[in-house]
Amino acid sequence: MSIDIEMVSQAKVFGGFHKQYTHPSKVLQCDMKFAVFIPSSASTDNPVPVFYWLSGLTCTDENFMQKAGAFRVAEELGIAIVAPDTSPRGEGVPDDPDGAYDFGLGAGFYLNATQEPWSKHYQMYDYIVQELPELVEAHFPVSTVKSISGHSMGGHGALTIGIKNPEQYRAISAFSPITNPTNCPWGQKAFSRYLGSDQELWKDYDSCELLTTRGCTLPILVDQGDSDGFLEEQLKPQALEQAAKQVDPSLTLRMQPGYDHSYFFIQSFIDDHLRFHAEYLK
Amino acid sequence: MSIDIEMVSQAKVFGGFHKQYTHPSKVLQCDMKFAVFIPSSASTDNPVPVFYWLSGLTCTDENFMQKAGAFRVAEELGIAIVAPDTSPRGEGVPDDPDGAYDFGLGAGFYLNATQEPWSKHYQMYDYIVQELPELVEAHFPVSTVKSISGHSMGGHGALTIGIKNPEQYRAISAFSPITNPTNCPWGQKAFSRYLGSDQELWKDYDSCELLTTRGCTLPILVDQGDSDGFLEEQLKPQALEQAAKQVDPSLTLRMQPGYDHSYFFIQSFIDDHLRFHAEYLK
Repeated sequence: MSIDIEMVSQAKVFGGFHKQYTHPSKVLQCDMKFAVFIPSSASTDNPVPVFYWLSGLTCTDENFMQKAGAFRVAEELGIAIVAPDTSPRGEGVPDDPDGAYDFGLGAGFYLNATQEPWSKHYQMYDYIVQELPELVEAHFPVSTVKSISGHSMGGHGALTIGIKNPEQYRAISAFSPITNPTNCPWGQKAFSRYLGSDQELWKDYDSCELLTTRGCTLPILVDQGDSDGFLEEQLKPQALEQAAKQVDPSLTLRMQPGYDHSYFFIQSFIDDHLRFHAEYLK
Repeated sequence: MSIDIEMVSQAKVFGGFHKQYTHPSKVLQCDMKFAVFIPSSASTDNPVPVFYWLSGLTCTDENFMQKAGAFRVAEELGIAIVAPDTSPRGEGVPDDPDGAYDFGLGAGFYLNATQEPWSKHYQMYDYIVQELPELVEAHFPVSTVKSISGHSMGGHGALTIGIKNPEQYRAISAFSPITNPTNCPWGQKAFSRYLGSDQELWKDYDSCELLTTRGCTLPILVDQGDSDGFLEEQLKPQALEQAAKQVDPSLTLRMQPGYDHSYFFIQSFIDDHLRFHAEYLK
């Protein structure tokens, strides 16, 4: 294959390696960065499964890799981790005219935009579902077995992408996900501009809507801190629980007392998530 | 006591709490930030020992707390962590005129400066040894039992402060410490400006010199990556080993193959360091 990727940095960690790459994305029409953790057990003779992590608003590939403390258990379990960026970037990629943190750069919402001027570059759904896994599977000692997880906007991404592609992933998890974006300010702002005013089209990127209409054969684990400042207005885990009741998927929602929306919360429970995923990545 | 400290932020993590504070420092004559991790077992009836962490060049209190992954084991062991800033900060505090990363702000070298214009504020040795522990012991459910550790410039700080104050600390450890600052570019640049041209005076802040002249009754653990780009020119762990041979302290120097100078290295071995310290903090 002649997909070119270029290593930006690498560092040994817990016996494996963290590596950051850049590559030209056909889907997003810009250069993108992503990061991987490759456990020491991975080799062409022993390709390992992949845990995809989607980050939240304002993040890049770096936040999870630096702050989540995931590598100790990923190394123990023999699981690779892939962390993409949260939006297209670079020259020519449009941003929110006011530089808002919750739209444009750092806020791609893991969807395929249909509206100008966003539709040319903001195709994060196709990037995550198709282009990135192809790239990863072509260049690293990994198998095609994968699962998906994420935080906040990335929790929304993990849930919607997992529910829509049950043949591609083995399990889904999320920290503090935006469960019902058609019904919260972050989602309404982003969807109206990326997808236009027809709210019927928004439902294709709302995990509560998708769960109700499609069901979900994959196991889902969600952790949510009950001291999260975004809980009531933006995240609405009860909406997901309510939607799940109608279709009886395997959803475990854990309300974690006293935890907020930060990576301090994520690092406290990432080991549980990795062990949950490992059960299904065997 | 009427020392005023003000909480800037707090977040639950692994059952304990990470909290960031600001306070007016008498010693440094400016407002300083520091961060603490308080394990859930700590209370006025059960004051816990404290692990002091000194960070390296360019860092603040935040780097270790966000990237080291130390809280899981600190919570398990019932140890508090205190992470100060690496220099005085704020209005009126002089910086390197060229904004160098290795002198001035973010580069206090844990010494008491004697030269103008640095001597008014750059008194990090007294801050770490006296003012900060008094503040911490007055405001948190901790005991007076403590140990000290750090990275790079902070490893230099931990070694020199520990060796000079064996009655105050129970153990010393360091990641990639600047062991022999009188004999490396980082140290020579900083000491000549903070301490002046009389190199005899520099020896009081050089762990190799201190070990040779004073010995050390405390156990010392040092981890050093052998792929660290600063190893030969700046860090010189063999100089520490050589100095130790003359006085026979309990020094364990571990060369870690393939690891670099980053927090990926620190997070890989911080659990070992916490367990090492815990043995002596009982």
